[in-house]
Amino acid sequence: MSKDDDAGEPGSNRDTHYAKLRRAHRDAKRDQQGLPPAQPRTRRELPARKGSLYAGRVAPETVYLYGLHTVRAALDNPARRIASLKATRNALTRLEIAEDAALPFALDLVTPQDIDLLLGDDAVHQGVLLQTAPLKPRPLSALGETNLLVILDQVTDPHNVGAIMRSAVAFGAGALITTQRHSPQESGVLAKAASGALELIDHIEVRNLATAIEEIKAQGFVTIGLDSAAPAPIEAGLSGERIALVLGAEGKGLRHKTRDTVDRLIRLDMPGAIKSLNVSNATAIALYAARQHLAGAERR
Amino acid sequence: MSKDDDAGEPGSNRDTHYAKLRRAHRDAKRDQQGLPPAQPRTRRELPARKGSLYAGRVAPETVYLYGLHTVRAALDNPARRIASLKATRNALTRLEIAEDAALPFALDLVTPQDIDLLLGDDAVHQGVLLQTAPLKPRPLSALGETNLLVILDQVTDPHNVGAIMRSAVAFGAGALITTQRHSPQESGVLAKAASGALELIDHIEVRNLATAIEEIKAQGFVTIGLDSAAPAPIEAGLSGERIALVLGAEGKGLRHKTRDTVDRLIRLDMPGAIKSLNVSNATAIALYAARQHLAGAERR
Repeated sequence: MSKDDDAGEPGSNRDTHYAKLRRAHRDAKRDQQGLPPAQPRTRRELPARKGSLYAGRVAPETVYLYGLHTVRAALDNPARRIASLKATRNALTRLEIAEDAALPFALDLVTPQDIDLLLGDDAVHQGVLLQTAPLKPRPLSALGETNLLVILDQVTDPHNVGAIMRSAVAFGAGALITTQRHSPQESGVLAKAASGALELIDHIEVRNLATAIEEIKAQGFVTIGLDSAAPAPIEAGLSGERIALVLGAEGKGLRHKTRDTVDRLIRLDMPGAIKSLNVSNATAIALYAARQHLAGAERR
Repeated sequence: MSKDDDAGEPGSNRDTHYAKLRRAHRDAKRDQQGLPPAQPRTRRELPARKGSLYAGRVAPETVYLYGLHTVRAALDNPARRIASLKATRNALTRLEIAEDAALPFALDLVTPQDIDLLLGDDAVHQGVLLQTAPLKPRPLSALGETNLLVILDQVTDPHNVGAIMRSAVAFGAGALITTQRHSPQESGVLAKAASGALELIDHIEVRNLATAIEEIKAQGFVTIGLDSAAPAPIEAGLSGERIALVLGAEGKGLRHKTRDTVDRLIRLDMPGAIKSLNVSNATAIALYAARQHLAGAERR
């Protein structure tokens, strides 16, 4: 589940060091094998950010989406700019696309192995690979009418962020708000975990999370941060008719500034021997509890 | 997040076909590169089951656990039979183990690259790799005193099962019950997702799930299956003082026989455009709601 979000203590440079070593080693290995540069990077974040983390972000120009649900949802999204679709005959049938269909993008009939060569062995691609431009995250000014928001404070693992997108759409959250830095860019892994939700959620990116939270408060949202050391349990801490849930990465939690900015902090009580959940699971529970509260508020 | 559990329609042979092709291709590639057989398999299930799926299961003799939390929890588990620990100097410090410590297993000081070579590039191992025998799942007769159980009906993805173990321990479930077949065996991926919970949960394996559910009912549990087509929402459907939650794989859901055997079916209402959650997220919400119900039942 979580990879980056579970890694080590906050502020530790060790994992970055290991990551560099691993990358160097991997690149050397690929060289020896005469393999092309490891594009696309499906299991980790795309390397486009490398070196640009503190100097403005360079978005990838192309992402590769795979898996039947994910590709179907992308094909159905009019905002998607699609370059090409590679599919096996079987996958094409399951996507209900005719082999001779007139499509506004290139269609290649391929074998599963052709896709393996591009994605690596571990991606469950189900015989389909879509090359597309990533969707453009929107600014906070684009926030529409909604009574439920999810805000992520530097949750970096694409599996978790994808799963959170899926739960956010399922529970009718109006948008997912992330920081420009220290958030995963769109990728095949994120899209697969989102299971189509990537195409359905309003993804808003902000530069400064504290400033954004202040603006969201001004729009009448009660901003509620999840924090294991919070004084109130979630059941007692939900209030208001518009709720913005704020969650941090596992281990790190919310940053100090974020903690100081939200209206209140709540905790999720766990009676067992482990006192923390995977961040996508914690978000799912918070969304469920918030929906319960809002439904009650509407009845009152 | 989910891999296997998201894959295609129930009963479809296509993914199996692709899986075979991919495997053949991968093995051929490894051959060409002069690599050793792909042991351990960290991203997919261990291949020990191959061919034995319908003829009794062959358990792997060795699993490789990695990641600081995971390895720390395994070292702390007296039931673990450990063969060796490979660690970087940094990781050893973080595990608070002295380089010259007298340990009941072999300790190798290694570089991160040494571990990469064994695990592949994608495992976030944080410089530590433990070679150990898998824990033995227990029979249903070993079920201890508890008022909350999680039962999985052929959930196959190790990421999901690991995350479910973590949530089950967090919410104080007394055991996780899975089927012997069509459940992931212990692996590094499962253990990493469980974030230590693998060492803390009673894992019970049963041959026949319907028979097991009958036995669990006889012990006073209300057995409750999650099903998107259920007549009652979760809030109205929880009752009793001992609850066993039963969840199926995404897409497939509960098998007919399971649906017919449980005391009742409940659904999780989702107002949004996506009507299904990742199975670990659905389980987390069900555990949360069940804990709420049981706490209320105790107060009454």
